[in-house]
Amino acid sequence: VEGRRAVLELLRAGRRRVRSVLLSGDAERDEVLDEIAELAGPSLRVANAEKVKAAARTDAHQGVVASAQPLQAADVDELLDADDAFLVALDGVTDPQNLGAVMRTAASAGATGIVLPRHRAVHVTPTVAKAAAGAIEHLPIAVVPGLPTALTRARELGVWSVGLDARADRSIFDVEVVTDPVLVVLGAEGAGLGRLTRQRCDVVAAIPLRGPLDSLNVSAAAAVACFEVARRRLG
Amino acid sequence: VEGRRAVLELLRAGRRRVRSVLLSGDAERDEVLDEIAELAGPSLRVANAEKVKAAARTDAHQGVVASAQPLQAADVDELLDADDAFLVALDGVTDPQNLGAVMRTAASAGATGIVLPRHRAVHVTPTVAKAAAGAIEHLPIAVVPGLPTALTRARELGVWSVGLDARADRSIFDVEVVTDPVLVVLGAEGAGLGRLTRQRCDVVAAIPLRGPLDSLNVSAAAAVACFEVARRRLG
Repeated sequence: VEGRRAVLELLRAGRRRVRSVLLSGDAERDEVLDEIAELAGPSLRVANAEKVKAAARTDAHQGVVASAQPLQAADVDELLDADDAFLVALDGVTDPQNLGAVMRTAASAGATGIVLPRHRAVHVTPTVAKAAAGAIEHLPIAVVPGLPTALTRARELGVWSVGLDARADRSIFDVEVVTDPVLVVLGAEGAGLGRLTRQRCDVVAAIPLRGPLDSLNVSAAAAVACFEVARRRLG
Repeated sequence: VEGRRAVLELLRAGRRRVRSVLLSGDAERDEVLDEIAELAGPSLRVANAEKVKAAARTDAHQGVVASAQPLQAADVDELLDADDAFLVALDGVTDPQNLGAVMRTAASAGATGIVLPRHRAVHVTPTVAKAAAGAIEHLPIAVVPGLPTALTRARELGVWSVGLDARADRSIFDVEVVTDPVLVVLGAEGAGLGRLTRQRCDVVAAIPLRGPLDSLNVSAAAAVACFEVARRRLG
């Protein structure tokens, strides 16, 4: 786990055992570092900048690298069965920055979990963790063999699935079911939703675009869709 | 101008003179490249991959680099004076990826222009242009000496300014003035809006966040705010 925000949220969440937190001796101290040092307690080790760099797997470690127990995958049925289920599934999103950004946004909108297919997707790498700014520590992630099967299961458990597709006639702003348990399905930029995934969604809706460009980045689309769910749920 | 989408929108918009479009001979052909080749006409030059790489200033050129007349800055008064004004101002945003992403999202939401302060901001570099995916070709950009002065001018011209601030009591979802001419002001992640900028805004509102994280990335915040304006304007 690399980067100040990511390590801070790792420690704050306290959901996995942290083996060590390596802090660069010449890192500029700020409130975040102070809280990291406090929460890390005896697992904190101050090292020189070279050593921290060697331990890091990305260039964005900001002088802090933590080693922790791997994330536990969540059970998709458990996520679907929650009364307030607000899940986000990603179909074919392969860019780690985008996955991280979507997770951060979803967590901030109040999502209760993320669903990723085992294939055609990125998984949680240090780049994802960094872009998620700590969201991976709080937001349960379920990895499923295939999204179409997960969508069928969602229907069985009374969870509405809402797929985002730029070509849909219906506007995401007119989808009222999002106050019920809901699974928002986002496709990769360009390719969009897989054919079978699209067919299995209860509702397929578009974000109404104006102007000459014909698509949004998947993280922007996630922000609009997740906060539309949040807005409607606020009442 | 680098990258397939960026070069395509440069040619589609036709707002600046294009000197040359350099295309890598081994670039995989797709619909976008075909349209680029068609629109570029005699300014198209096919070169080997090394030459294209040498001409590029980023690693994200995707085999296409165009040389064009510089972008013309827009006049802020002209942007503010439009009946349907829907402007986005960025205060202290220094990350080029974020600026590009905000421009792309704003253009897709129907924004009519971007306002950037001359200082404390990034300007339009190849990285920005790439992340904007062509939005810079369509969305007028005004560069102003300072945002507070631009906000005063906005008020004189009957444009509501709505600042986004995570600490505001009011929710962005309760701001009704956005159907009038509006200027949405976004601050940098962390620092937020400058003190004077915040004071000069007619309305300061927050995106209501849930969950443990305490901020959104500026491009996610822009997506939520811009599409909230778009949603209300749709009626």
